[in-house]
Amino acid sequence: TRSKLPDVGTTIFTVIGQLSAQHNAINLSQGAPNFSCDPKLIAGVTRAMEAGHNQYAAMTGLQPLKERIVDKIASLYGTRYDASSEVLITASASEGLYSAISGLVHPGDEVIYFEPSFDSYAPIVRLQGATPVAIKLTVPDFAVDWNEVRAAVTSRTRMIIINTPHNPSGQVFSAADLEQLAAITRQTDIIILSDEVYEHVVFDGQPHHGMATHPQLAERSVIISSFGKTYHVTGWRVGYCVAPAELMDEICKVHQFLMFSADTPMQYAFAEHMADPQTWLSLSAFYQRKRDLLQNLLAESPFRLLPSAGSFFLLADYSHFSDESDSEMVKRLIVESGVATIPLSAFYTDGTDNKLIRLSFAKDEATLRAGAQALCRVK
Amino acid sequence: TRSKLPDVGTTIFTVIGQLSAQHNAINLSQGAPNFSCDPKLIAGVTRAMEAGHNQYAAMTGLQPLKERIVDKIASLYGTRYDASSEVLITASASEGLYSAISGLVHPGDEVIYFEPSFDSYAPIVRLQGATPVAIKLTVPDFAVDWNEVRAAVTSRTRMIIINTPHNPSGQVFSAADLEQLAAITRQTDIIILSDEVYEHVVFDGQPHHGMATHPQLAERSVIISSFGKTYHVTGWRVGYCVAPAELMDEICKVHQFLMFSADTPMQYAFAEHMADPQTWLSLSAFYQRKRDLLQNLLAESPFRLLPSAGSFFLLADYSHFSDESDSEMVKRLIVESGVATIPLSAFYTDGTDNKLIRLSFAKDEATLRAGAQALCRVK
Ligand SMILES: CSCCC(=O)C(=O)O
Ligand SMILES: CSCCC(=O)C(=O)O
Repeated sequence: TRSKLPDVGTTIFTVIGQLSAQHNAINLSQGAPNFSCDPKLIAGVTRAMEAGHNQYAAMTGLQPLKERIVDKIASLYGTRYDASSEVLITASASEGLYSAISGLVHPGDEVIYFEPSFDSYAPIVRLQGATPVAIKLTVPDFAVDWNEVRAAVTSRTRMIIINTPHNPSGQVFSAADLEQLAAITRQTDIIILSDEVYEHVVFDGQPHHGMATHPQLAERSVIISSFGKTYHVTGWRVGYCVAPAELMDEICKVHQFLMFSADTPMQYAFAEHMADPQTWLSLSAFYQRKRDLLQNLLAESPFRLLPSAGSFFLLADYSHFSDESDSEMVKRLIVESGVATIPLSAFYTDGTDNKLIRLSFAKDEATLRAGAQALCRVK
Repeated sequence: TRSKLPDVGTTIFTVIGQLSAQHNAINLSQGAPNFSCDPKLIAGVTRAMEAGHNQYAAMTGLQPLKERIVDKIASLYGTRYDASSEVLITASASEGLYSAISGLVHPGDEVIYFEPSFDSYAPIVRLQGATPVAIKLTVPDFAVDWNEVRAAVTSRTRMIIINTPHNPSGQVFSAADLEQLAAITRQTDIIILSDEVYEHVVFDGQPHHGMATHPQLAERSVIISSFGKTYHVTGWRVGYCVAPAELMDEICKVHQFLMFSADTPMQYAFAEHMADPQTWLSLSAFYQRKRDLLQNLLAESPFRLLPSAGSFFLLADYSHFSDESDSEMVKRLIVESGVATIPLSAFYTDGTDNKLIRLSFAKDEATLRAGAQALCRVK
């Protein structure tokens, strides 16, 4: 049959996940924790189910949950959204990204995004009959060259997709990045779609420079976040999206037909658990310990680690000891060393090979130790 | 901002749901049960969460769940799908419909569907840059006029969307309908998208004439079903989709970016519970009792009920006692009589008013009695 995405295969996370399982490898690939969530959260889901909250939730989400989100964003970042018209509970951050792009990007539009990038952005844009315009982040610091962005903006630019903290590089936006973005978009109709699923995982005492910290950017931004990443339950498929009402209306037009509503009992559990801000306030320190542990364990490895300022990930360079492509390296690591990682080339549409692999440190200590040990033995 | 669906408002289910809540009306509107599911199912979710099954499931779904589905379909309908390449667990039937249409329908294509219809089909088709071609079912029996379908097929027809049992009319396909559809699609590349979420709710001893009962149709069909409808948990957002591998590949290309994976603990619970076929084998009788009860209770009402052969719904005619449009009637019933229903006109893109309202009998006995009592008093 004719394909709308003839050059797109199975997502790298599935390909590596299957190979990793076949070889029983230590899994440092996907950004999915292998440790448990707060038992209170599980009890909350059970209580909601037993109380009979098992039918369709409201299309835009459970009102108390939306109110908690509004309060959290206001207290952390200073922007106050309207819970009724500017917050949408989505069935995963992925669904939020899809509904936002599908609702807002028209055929013929251009969408600027940065590579390396999460592998869904460009295909979703293409499915709208629009053109993804990739701008490469500088290597090895993965910063945005704002002059390149300025030069890439045309009258057809509908959207710029931001992702901070950045998957896969672990880099984060600075206040200066936000100013640059604000200057470029001022007096345009450009919408910013900001994937901030790692908003609560920023290291070394830095604040998260998300779009809600900058009133002028917030006005034109759709911000996507995730309960899965914040609560260690990536399989529960609940995320959220905030945006000015005018943009939100268009996103909801898609969401209501694509998904109608997100999981009901899980929404109840998150609404209840969000009474405790410690979850997100303590998350950066929690993951920083994991980052530091993995960095320390790999100090004696042949890999040279790039710094990670946020997210669940860090990049490892092997260019000084091997000429293999990063996909070859990743395959060899799974098959011969028993450890699974992700090749950075999978985050480039043109397959750019920087001889970098992505490690996920969203793993328990035993797994990080075992994975690091395997990586230390690589030659 | 420019809208991709300028003429589309908030889905009728949300509009009526809100109005109904405001007026504290007895809710016979949405196809969402107000009674509880099997406690074993809830225990299964809890067990899965406590066992740590809280991270991303496999992109296409949990293998044991897919195998149960394959076995169920083979035993009920005679077609055996391959669990690995022809079954996809979706985060609701809605997501399945969206991923299938988005993956398979190209800009410029035509998609034939039948009105009245569930309100998502046409907007999803339009979002692909394709043209929905509505064929009206005959009134009052809501049968397909196959000559009209034959005449509507062009070289651009990519897909025909079927829905049996039919929401909102409660009508079902016969074996003769399947033969007509087979004759029309033979020697074409037309894909059939068959929404069969009410496959286990068919009354009066009739079998379900779904696409998997007809090998020649199964070959070109994407079949959508729902766990929410079958297990009384519409808020759990798990459904599935089966299709020949070649079509499934294209659906997965969208699903992997739109959703990645469906809820993990709920998939475990369904996989476990599906060991017991009684759930689906007993469902028709369960809902037939509800249909019969509502019919009996309304015998003395001013409404004339149309027969319902399946689904959670039946239509009620009031044309002999009022000239109001069906939306006016529905509004009046909520505000004055305290009972919420859905106007049939919401299922037509052109708002055709047949002076029919849709009643959902997926409600407990007390609600059906209270709703019927209110409807009996209408003048
Ligand atoms: C569906 S994969 C989601 C993102 C992630 O976990 C990763 O990049 O590994
Ligand atoms: C999201 S509404 C799903 C279908 C249904 O329940 C209805 O038609 O009432």
